[in-house]
Amino acid sequence: MKTEKEKMINGELYMAGDPELTRDRLNARKLTRLFNNTIETDMDQRTALLTQLLGSTGKSVYIEPTFRCDYGYNIYVGENFYANFDCVFLDVCEIRIGDNCFIAPGVHIYTATHPLDAAERNSGAEFGKPVNIGHNVWIGGRSVINPGVTIGNNVVIASGSVVTKDVPDNVVIGGNPARIIKPIA
Amino acid sequence: MKTEKEKMINGELYMAGDPELTRDRLNARKLTRLFNNTIETDMDQRTALLTQLLGSTGKSVYIEPTFRCDYGYNIYVGENFYANFDCVFLDVCEIRIGDNCFIAPGVHIYTATHPLDAAERNSGAEFGKPVNIGHNVWIGGRSVINPGVTIGNNVVIASGSVVTKDVPDNVVIGGNPARIIKPIA
Amino acid sequence: MKTEKEKMINGELYMAGDPELTRDRLNARKLTRLFNNTIETDMDQRTALLTQLLGSTGKSVYIEPTFRCDYGYNIYVGENFYANFDCVFLDVCEIRIGDNCFIAPGVHIYTATHPLDAAERNSGAEFGKPVNIGHNVWIGGRSVINPGVTIGNNVVIASGSVVTKDVPDNVVIGGNPARIIKPIA
Repeated sequence: MKTEKEKMINGELYMAGDPELTRDRLNARKLTRLFNNTIETDMDQRTALLTQLLGSTGKSVYIEPTFRCDYGYNIYVGENFYANFDCVFLDVCEIRIGDNCFIAPGVHIYTATHPLDAAERNSGAEFGKPVNIGHNVWIGGRSVINPGVTIGNNVVIASGSVVTKDVPDNVVIGGNPARIIKPIA
Repeated sequence: MKTEKEKMINGELYMAGDPELTRDRLNARKLTRLFNNTIETDMDQRTALLTQLLGSTGKSVYIEPTFRCDYGYNIYVGENFYANFDCVFLDVCEIRIGDNCFIAPGVHIYTATHPLDAAERNSGAEFGKPVNIGHNVWIGGRSVINPGVTIGNNVVIASGSVVTKDVPDNVVIGGNPARIIKPIA
Repeated sequence: MKTEKEKMINGELYMAGDPELTRDRLNARKLTRLFNNTIETDMDQRTALLTQLLGSTGKSVYIEPTFRCDYGYNIYVGENFYANFDCVFLDVCEIRIGDNCFIAPGVHIYTATHPLDAAERNSGAEFGKPVNIGHNVWIGGRSVINPGVTIGNNVVIASGSVVTKDVPDNVVIGGNPARIIKPIA
């Protein structure tokens, strides 16, 4: 029999009020609170807290406070990762990000979603879909990446984009919903 | 003769520098500051502060810090209310939200607006329009609800939406400006 | 020979890891942290910190915490400036704002950008383009102003706009990308 945590990570309906998940969220709230309360000269402490919070990181990982997430352990970032102020990653399913990715301020990455049917949604059952982001991706400020989206390599996402569908390699995308603006040679 | 507060809540031009309104805003700033400084285990304190801040709530009300608003007392939420990180509700007029509403991270609900004419705007006179949201509404992450908008029951608002017009019951809407995407059976 | 700081402000490719720029960013992080930690009754302290942080201000300058920027000294605001909660100004190049401008919550103004080519971007070289905003401009909540944009006088920007191109005087604009909605008489 699967635990609620296993169902959650597998993308099945689960109950977020489960004791194990509640404990895990409280732990992530604590770590992100400690991280967000560090000051600009506490660089070693910031790196240590991120290493503890996230599923995995490369050697170079930099996030500007404030940063918020649901669990942290479902976020896997590659080498040379940078995220600017006020990013929110809702990681009920895995968020996998490749090497050399730059995230501008206020980017939200969501894996969490709810049933469209009100009665089902009000029951408390929810679910997620993973997000995959390739290498060398630059996500412009205030963009939103929706649950289930896969983004290729060498992609530039214009500021304010709402990314609702998969994105191929080597393109600039933008808009709401985001569409391909031009290829990158 | 109406007070500036009465004019404000009635949707008439008012002066925000009025002493009573200034005092009320300072009180809301203090309560939201105390709320935003609570930690993840201070659940009773969070509920007590929300009950003090908001116009009315149901028995179950949960908001994740950080939360910001103008006055607080013009916000009326129904049973089983949940709002995630970083929501901003500008409540110069009433914001009424029904039962079982879920608000994703970074949603902004505005009742505050200004005159379009620069000279009139620069005089300091401003005004608002109320926002009404039905039951069983799920507002996706980083959506904006504009002043004067009424949203029906059983509505799902896609992430990144900018809602500029009234929304009927039983639909999914999305985009900027938000349009109906599909009905909900 | 130009310093990295000179190159940055001039809009040329520069290396953000430069010691002078790193020191300047840490100073801005410190000042914005002190500013964001003030409470609602610390009005004199807020004004003093803004005067120290920004390139220049008028006599009346008001920003609601939280406010974030990169350097601060490249931000020049006119008389009677007001910015609401959670604004982010990335000022690697100059951000010049005229008199009587009102900025709603969550507005991001970016001068910072990166090369589209992944190899060039990963080298760490980046650059910026200045933003110019006229007099009597009201920027609606959660709008984004992109690098290089010039906005005229008496402009109203609807909430949720993503402004990617120059804007003439006396218009209302909105959308993503923002387009002219109507003239202001």
